[in-house]
Amino acid sequence: MRKPAPQRAQRNDLEIGDLKVPVTQVTLSDGSTTQLYRTEGPTGIDPRDGLPTRRAPWIERRRARGDHNFSQMHCARNGEITEEMRFVAIREGMSPEFVRDEIARGRAIIPANIEHPELEPMIIGRNFLVKVNANIGNSKVLSSIDAEVEKLQWAVRWGADTVMDLSTGDQIHETREWILRNSPVPIGTVPLYQALEKVRGVVEDLNIDVYMETIEEQAKQGVSYFTVHAGVLLRSVPLTIDRVTGIVSRGGSIMAKWCLSHHKENFLYTHFEDICDVMKRYDVAFSLGDGLRPGSVADANDAAQFFELEVLGELTERAWKHDIQVMIEGPGHVPLHKIPENVERQLEVCKEAPFYTLGPLVTDIAPGYDHIASAIGAAMIAQHGTAMLCYVTPKEHLGLPDRDDVKEGMIAYKIAAHAADLAKQHPGAQERDDLLSKARFEFRWRDQFALGLDPERAEDYHDQTLPAEGAKTAHFCSMCGPAFCAYRISQDVNKLAASEKLIPLGKAQQAHDQATLEAEEGMAQKAREFRDGGGEVYVPIAEPMRSNSSS
Amino acid sequence: MRKPAPQRAQRNDLEIGDLKVPVTQVTLSDGSTTQLYRTEGPTGIDPRDGLPTRRAPWIERRRARGDHNFSQMHCARNGEITEEMRFVAIREGMSPEFVRDEIARGRAIIPANIEHPELEPMIIGRNFLVKVNANIGNSKVLSSIDAEVEKLQWAVRWGADTVMDLSTGDQIHETREWILRNSPVPIGTVPLYQALEKVRGVVEDLNIDVYMETIEEQAKQGVSYFTVHAGVLLRSVPLTIDRVTGIVSRGGSIMAKWCLSHHKENFLYTHFEDICDVMKRYDVAFSLGDGLRPGSVADANDAAQFFELEVLGELTERAWKHDIQVMIEGPGHVPLHKIPENVERQLEVCKEAPFYTLGPLVTDIAPGYDHIASAIGAAMIAQHGTAMLCYVTPKEHLGLPDRDDVKEGMIAYKIAAHAADLAKQHPGAQERDDLLSKARFEFRWRDQFALGLDPERAEDYHDQTLPAEGAKTAHFCSMCGPAFCAYRISQDVNKLAASEKLIPLGKAQQAHDQATLEAEEGMAQKAREFRDGGGEVYVPIAEPMRSNSSS
Repeated sequence: MRKPAPQRAQRNDLEIGDLKVPVTQVTLSDGSTTQLYRTEGPTGIDPRDGLPTRRAPWIERRRARGDHNFSQMHCARNGEITEEMRFVAIREGMSPEFVRDEIARGRAIIPANIEHPELEPMIIGRNFLVKVNANIGNSKVLSSIDAEVEKLQWAVRWGADTVMDLSTGDQIHETREWILRNSPVPIGTVPLYQALEKVRGVVEDLNIDVYMETIEEQAKQGVSYFTVHAGVLLRSVPLTIDRVTGIVSRGGSIMAKWCLSHHKENFLYTHFEDICDVMKRYDVAFSLGDGLRPGSVADANDAAQFFELEVLGELTERAWKHDIQVMIEGPGHVPLHKIPENVERQLEVCKEAPFYTLGPLVTDIAPGYDHIASAIGAAMIAQHGTAMLCYVTPKEHLGLPDRDDVKEGMIAYKIAAHAADLAKQHPGAQERDDLLSKARFEFRWRDQFALGLDPERAEDYHDQTLPAEGAKTAHFCSMCGPAFCAYRISQDVNKLAASEKLIPLGKAQQAHDQATLEAEEGMAQKAREFRDGGGEVYVPIAEPMRSNSSS
Repeated sequence: MRKPAPQRAQRNDLEIGDLKVPVTQVTLSDGSTTQLYRTEGPTGIDPRDGLPTRRAPWIERRRARGDHNFSQMHCARNGEITEEMRFVAIREGMSPEFVRDEIARGRAIIPANIEHPELEPMIIGRNFLVKVNANIGNSKVLSSIDAEVEKLQWAVRWGADTVMDLSTGDQIHETREWILRNSPVPIGTVPLYQALEKVRGVVEDLNIDVYMETIEEQAKQGVSYFTVHAGVLLRSVPLTIDRVTGIVSRGGSIMAKWCLSHHKENFLYTHFEDICDVMKRYDVAFSLGDGLRPGSVADANDAAQFFELEVLGELTERAWKHDIQVMIEGPGHVPLHKIPENVERQLEVCKEAPFYTLGPLVTDIAPGYDHIASAIGAAMIAQHGTAMLCYVTPKEHLGLPDRDDVKEGMIAYKIAAHAADLAKQHPGAQERDDLLSKARFEFRWRDQFALGLDPERAEDYHDQTLPAEGAKTAHFCSMCGPAFCAYRISQDVNKLAASEKLIPLGKAQQAHDQATLEAEEGMAQKAREFRDGGGEVYVPIAEPMRSNSSS
């Protein structure tokens, strides 16, 4: 059962002109408020009703004027600032014109299918806040529709900026419909999975027709980005044979098998133009899949991976000719020292199209803790320029994540993304840290909790040892106890210093010089004693004191 | 209750000459074995008996020959390769001479008090494996002796290389005695805490006499390193006044208050030579405390922090004159982009003495998850040269860690440390990753679990969705289900490729060229159609299909 969120943090829709932009408004103990970026949609709505369709009038207007390429990039290149651009500009604290320019040059995307009117637009680009994607979806083995909608709501509650529905099981269409109608964030998919279901799982039977039918179906439902594994070419497959972990992308392995079985070029590559036709009609963005990403640190930055990146660079430019928005998927498993090269190459080869990476995991030895192993890599790769991070849950490599896993993965990645925002000195990013630290130093426990990523857990942890209500204002916690609280003593220090107006530095220097002089005299005295004693001193060796006899 | 460790991983004492060096021996499903670095001591011993005192004869020999400076650095500088150096050389896969040389030049330390004969020696230095320290200790508010010994055993079970006993409560001496007699790893302390207890918590009443008495007492018990906050000078206190979080080190705040109250220089600084006399008699290493470390990202890399570092550099050289081993404590809270400067300055100012950092946390907004926020910073700072990481638990800033917190903190930090070992390309570090990844690719689930940092959790997570014994050899997991398993498909790809010996690359290129030609022809045809149609195409807009009516 969901514990009610603390009342001190609530959704608020800022009405700015014709736009309603959601924020989480936190009320601090002095009555002041601060506003945080919010991914969670309107709450308290029956999933059968779906979210309000606030984008509908914007899209109707574009339809009415006879548009046939609905992509945000198309508008941006035509000099138009859309409602979606103004919306994200408010969320990010940037100017609408800057947003338009970044989209026009392909350096950022707003994934916003015109068939997803429930969407609260967001932007993915390295000059904006680092975003986090959460994967959900059922498999043959587990999960239900209800569970997937709940996972969606749960993921956005904890800060998912986009959600990928990776369902491969039954009721794939219906599951997606429920997810879309209840999602305030863009939904991404890998259409190949459903196409494979349609040919009963026989890879060899895949073909462009069933694929085109699938993307038309999914685009019509409102999916905002498709992972397309068009970069796995027939001739790149041999490059993976000697790897420790071969091909670890599902889509990549499927296309490699298809290519090899038919001895034909990847049909996603050869029919890329046909796919583009669908993308622009709905404004579905490409998420060009890294089908040959490394699945172990041993395979990082190898020939297969970088060969595919070159192909993705070529495809980026082809998509851009249609004004279709593009981002590029990245690894995977990469040791720390090989991370920067991934971003540098991607930015160069793909002409600064946004990078969207899965982790990367910086070691392979942490099954059960891969959210941590990958959050480390994620923070570093985002610092270097990755625009969106795909989260990894503690169940990675082991099983399908449940609700708790989704939350654990999300929070680890919000930490990584925010760490990168700080490192990139994103305007305003540090404000929340400063507010929280100030609350911490001043023993405003409830403010500290409310400003954290997970107020409930912070309060629970605090209360495990000091549950009394009075402890919420106590000037110590159970970690150090009252006598040893550095914050309390430090406040005493500040008071002492203030009581003398300023500490007289000259006096401090005097004290130091005096002490040093005394110390030197002491040493000189010791040296004399040592010499007088003949240069050998008896050093009493204390007997070890044992409370027990040990063998 | 502790679940028994899987039998496939067991302690084994390698007998090499006169030394017994512990390893964790993992038996894989093909019967082969691999040996991992092991911090956990001999198990199954009653805490009242304490661990075997294997170092005792080594120390007796040194006493018998009339040594009065027992420090490993003193031996190293005299050209002696001690048993401790040979021991760590085996553990690290380095030559004893290299170990001796690193210690002689102060670039590494072996914290090994001669009164701690139960110790299994380990080395801290940036040319060796990155180490992790776990803090335990009771406070006035909580905890008992039993709980602390159990925490010690628990911490070393999960890989703690050293343990700091930060007790501040009652029975401080007795708690420490129990910990030491049962510890296979070096124990560190902050003697100032006990000294403050001796003056009933009144900071102003502290003095060098009570401090000297305390360090003599603790050294005699066998503590291997002391955090000494000798770098907090009277004139540095004003530098902290305008900080967001003032002074957050307990020792730092105590000494700052003392200095300010008395308007005298820090007695740990003025009596540094007296302290040195004790250190060398027992071989206690200095861990020069960073009393002015930043407690928030806002305060990182500020004047107070770097002023203190300069003082620590001076003290390092003074300690080295006595051949006393030294490491330097570091922050704290530091955003990612300010981390490298911390290491670079420390290495320069402190002449490459090993750096020992607490995290750092890369953001302040994650109370309840600070083990993750800090593991990110820890991995990066270790990659840049930090030799030992002090772990942070999920309870940081909120309360005293319990058993589960100790484990969570330890594993997050083993990941960070290992990630840095990989990044530094420490010889042999990647072997475990490769073995695990190979097992993963080949569906040897039990081998994958056994090679991971937490075999039990990995198995539990796997079994939550596929508990049947058969699933332990199944060629899929619940994440993707059987049809979509990339590993399985990738193995098919390898078989396909192998069946043709090598994929004929010429043929692949031919297929690609043919496909490209066809695609180009198709595009040319489309372009013709488009032009013929007058340059405007009707794009049918599909009606959104809704499974529900939304407002």
